[in-house]
Amino acid sequence: MIRTIASALAALALAFPLAAQEVPAALAPGEIVAEAAPQDWIRIAPEDLLVMTLAPAADGTAREVVIQLMPPPFSQGWVENIRTLARAGWYDGISVNRVQDNYVAQWGDPNHDNPEAEGEAKALPEGLRVMNQDEYVLPTNGPRIGAALAHLFRQDTKEDGSIEFPSDSYAQLTLHVDGWPSAVESPSSLWPVHCYGMVGVGRGMSPDTGSGAELYTVIGHAPRHLDRNIALVGRVIEGIEHLSSLPRGKGALGFYEDPAKRVPIRSIRVASDLPVAEQPRFEYLSTESASFARYAEARANRRDPFFIVPAGGADICNIPVPVRRTATK
Amino acid sequence: MIRTIASALAALALAFPLAAQEVPAALAPGEIVAEAAPQDWIRIAPEDLLVMTLAPAADGTAREVVIQLMPPPFSQGWVENIRTLARAGWYDGISVNRVQDNYVAQWGDPNHDNPEAEGEAKALPEGLRVMNQDEYVLPTNGPRIGAALAHLFRQDTKEDGSIEFPSDSYAQLTLHVDGWPSAVESPSSLWPVHCYGMVGVGRGMSPDTGSGAELYTVIGHAPRHLDRNIALVGRVIEGIEHLSSLPRGKGALGFYEDPAKRVPIRSIRVASDLPVAEQPRFEYLSTESASFARYAEARANRRDPFFIVPAGGADICNIPVPVRRTATK
Repeated sequence: MIRTIASALAALALAFPLAAQEVPAALAPGEIVAEAAPQDWIRIAPEDLLVMTLAPAADGTAREVVIQLMPPPFSQGWVENIRTLARAGWYDGISVNRVQDNYVAQWGDPNHDNPEAEGEAKALPEGLRVMNQDEYVLPTNGPRIGAALAHLFRQDTKEDGSIEFPSDSYAQLTLHVDGWPSAVESPSSLWPVHCYGMVGVGRGMSPDTGSGAELYTVIGHAPRHLDRNIALVGRVIEGIEHLSSLPRGKGALGFYEDPAKRVPIRSIRVASDLPVAEQPRFEYLSTESASFARYAEARANRRDPFFIVPAGGADICNIPVPVRRTATK
Repeated sequence: MIRTIASALAALALAFPLAAQEVPAALAPGEIVAEAAPQDWIRIAPEDLLVMTLAPAADGTAREVVIQLMPPPFSQGWVENIRTLARAGWYDGISVNRVQDNYVAQWGDPNHDNPEAEGEAKALPEGLRVMNQDEYVLPTNGPRIGAALAHLFRQDTKEDGSIEFPSDSYAQLTLHVDGWPSAVESPSSLWPVHCYGMVGVGRGMSPDTGSGAELYTVIGHAPRHLDRNIALVGRVIEGIEHLSSLPRGKGALGFYEDPAKRVPIRSIRVASDLPVAEQPRFEYLSTESASFARYAEARANRRDPFFIVPAGGADICNIPVPVRRTATK
């Protein structure tokens, strides 16, 4: 569903011409992505990639998870803390302690804040920033967000000057900002949203905002009620099945009651700290590209042969940003 | 987010008085459900319960999945086929053949429609109905749906006569009908929606609509683009972790490439066919009860202590219908 909104934000759109919309008749979303031009793909900086190595599975299968950290202006205090923790080797030897069905998989120090701890909690490294909960949301007048909003309005303005936005159950409008699914309340507040695979920062009760020492990823239906209540710092871009297919914990909130069920984390490394030959290379489809606009439209209106009735809409978490691994060089 | 709609459907609401809304200050959704009166719970008929027994896990853990089939007016041709298949013992010995991350787990005859089949496909029992794809949607003027819509309008009509509905990305409005998440396009079309745990009927290319011999359940973000394109027949109400935590298939669409990875299904039984002492008993919270209205409101506006900012809305798949097992008697 789309709805027409007259909003203060719409004024941003007036300076831009209308974009001609070209929609091939029957391409599936994946086919549109496969046809995207090389210049529509943006390389992810190695500084923004985390490589998390779990202990091998019972059958010996290696388990590696790659996380893309958010770029500015999102959550940078927590993102910096995560790099600090990774570089201190602090994450090495912690574990996945919680897997709650249709919700999250969470990893951290199992002895932290645990009344049944078997040992001492690990001391945190020096220099971690303490973030304020105001920083869960961002102003919309920064340059990156302003440009993304202007792009959205340019793209969706109709000939009569009205603008149609996809309806969303949680926000006035949703959009992708530099590749990240985001929501806006007019006129001045933007936040990243909890889609499948997004990575967030575990915390205690407010005003605690978490340091980044405990992290989780979404393994079920988007828990958008967590938006603006917890910091998001990235997303799993490879290997999420090593977390989403773990046995569910039988304790409260999906924590493993038996410590032996926890999954050891061998290490978490910032990719730029690895030898160049070992650095994984990934790129994402620019959410400001015409290819992405066609892909998003096709996700909302499936015309590939299996489908009979196009939905006429898609929530932002059903338009996952295409990410691909490229050859190491 | 909510939006105000003036709709032909709204006329239904005029005959009803406004409901007084009582919202306790800080109860979590689960606490509201725990306080619901016994009469707000509706027993699920044993005829509407399927018990699916998988082969035990590698560590010997028993794996049982309970599915609630949809009552009239939903998808009854397919639901009857499923009872026919279960009663013929047809499902016994089939397997889970496909587990695609953030999408579906699917079970059926691995030799059906499989170019690499190792054996003959199983013959289907006599008497299966062939359903028309028109039956993916329902008219809104039937008695059950009409009553549910009237309830919705009564509940949400404001003092000035306007009605606010939760915004939805896929339909004009969403509501629960007799416990089932549903969507409506005004004025005459209603369909059940693909939330986490919903069970649907695999099919080939249109006009095939599937018989019920191949089934899937949603194990990721709600794939609402499947709505109106495939028949939904029920939902998993217990044991979904035995499907959602299975290893993901490495073949196309998440099919297991190695037949040895398939998970054998020992049997699928209609609960009413089991000895009474073995029949599982479940009940669901009436979606027409005041308790459910309070629960849904609390899901959309979390006030329990962890939360700082209530979302102000929730999509229908984030308001799962509470279901509980009760003692066998």
